Amino acid sequence: MDHFLHDHPVTPRTDAEKQAVINRLKRIEGQVRGIQKMVEDDRYCADILVQISAINAALKKVGYQVTERHMKHCVTDAVQSGQGEEAIDELMEIMKHFSK
Amino acid sequence: MDHFLHDHPVTPRTDAEKQAVINRLKRIEGQVRGIQKMVEDDRYCADILVQISAINAALKKVGYQVTERHMKHCVTDAVQSGQGEEAIDELMEIMKHFSK
Amino acid sequence: MDHFLHDHPVTPRTDAEKQAVINRLKRIEGQVRGIQKMVEDDRYCADILVQISAINAALKKVGYQVTERHMKHCVTDAVQSGQGEEAIDELMEIMKHFSK
Amino acid sequence: MDHFLHDHPVTPRTDAEKQAVINRLKRIEGQVRGIQKMVEDDRYCADILVQISAINAALKKVGYQVTERHMKHCVTDAVQSGQGEEAIDELMEIMKHFSK
Repeated sequence: MDHFLHDHPVTPRTDAEKQAVINRLKRIEGQVRGIQKMVEDDRYCADILVQISAINAALKKVGYQVTERHMKHCVTDAVQSGQGEEAIDELMEIMKHFSK
Repeated sequence: MDHFLHDHPVTPRTDAEKQAVINRLKRIEGQVRGIQKMVEDDRYCADILVQISAINAALKKVGYQVTERHMKHCVTDAVQSGQGEEAIDELMEIMKHFSK
Repeated sequence: MDHFLHDHPVTPRTDAEKQAVINRLKRIEGQVRGIQKMVEDDRYCADILVQISAINAALKKVGYQVTERHMKHCVTDAVQSGQGEEAIDELMEIMKHFSK
Repeated sequence: MDHFLHDHPVTPRTDAEKQAVINRLKRIEGQVRGIQKMVEDDRYCADILVQISAINAALKKVGYQVTERHMKHCVTDAVQSGQGEEAIDELMEIMKHFSK
């Protein structure tokens, strides 16, 4: 992504913050592997759909977590240093893309 | 899930069908691991959000693939054997849950 | 839309069915007008967003209602008359478009 | 909604801004009435679904427009006056509700 600011967040994530996101992602990774196994075992499609739906929900939660942090640190910092408009345009672009 | 019919699809998936779905899922698994790395490296939040959005799109595509197969085999078979209503109710429940 | 079958559903909607859908749509129409008033009165953006979100939810419910009927009548009939594949392809196209 | 700040946006909307949103909403209102007519005329369900999908897309666009303005005025102002966290929490709540 051709973002306007930097490669790293303004305020570095704490280890606890990182771990919380990584834990969620590890669970999602496990769920994705679980579905591979279901497909291999030729399990009933509706059950597979339910699992895909569960991952979808879990992924949304990580998305919210990252978005909230992004707004509370990067966007807030950008607003305070007079670059709020660019940061908000960037975030809106991502949000529009997301819901596609 | 407490589905009404069976543990397996009416028409077993061919190996090619299985492989197509599993390949998509393996790519998604890799993408999820990629985001873990981005979080560890304390990468810019907006870039992470773009990657989460990409997984979201990839997951939707697997969902469509499985749904289409489900309708063309399981639901179709259920309709032909007089159990269409139950199969459709089941699918509607999943769809409603999905978009939450 | 360039659909493959007909201009009308296979089984005509009963008056009660029609009225149920129309009532929901009339409520949505009223909600949309309500938001116009909020914008005219220069109401707080967050309150407007909450109302847009409510319409979004109401619209989804009508969508499910129509989809369920479509599957239980049009798709079911198509399956029974050997045109199930076309009907399912058509529905999948709409579903993909929907979530965009 | 029990919002934390005020009944009105910090910067009042200009007439042009109001008109742009109201025009979009009027078009949506017309689309909703159009679907009522389709239901009354017992039109093919798939065509009705396509129209519902079009309203859904139009509604999303209004949502983005209002969200962008909200962030560029209300949230930005809140950040500058030291109430950014509350404003962001409020917006996150709405976003979570939206995608349900």
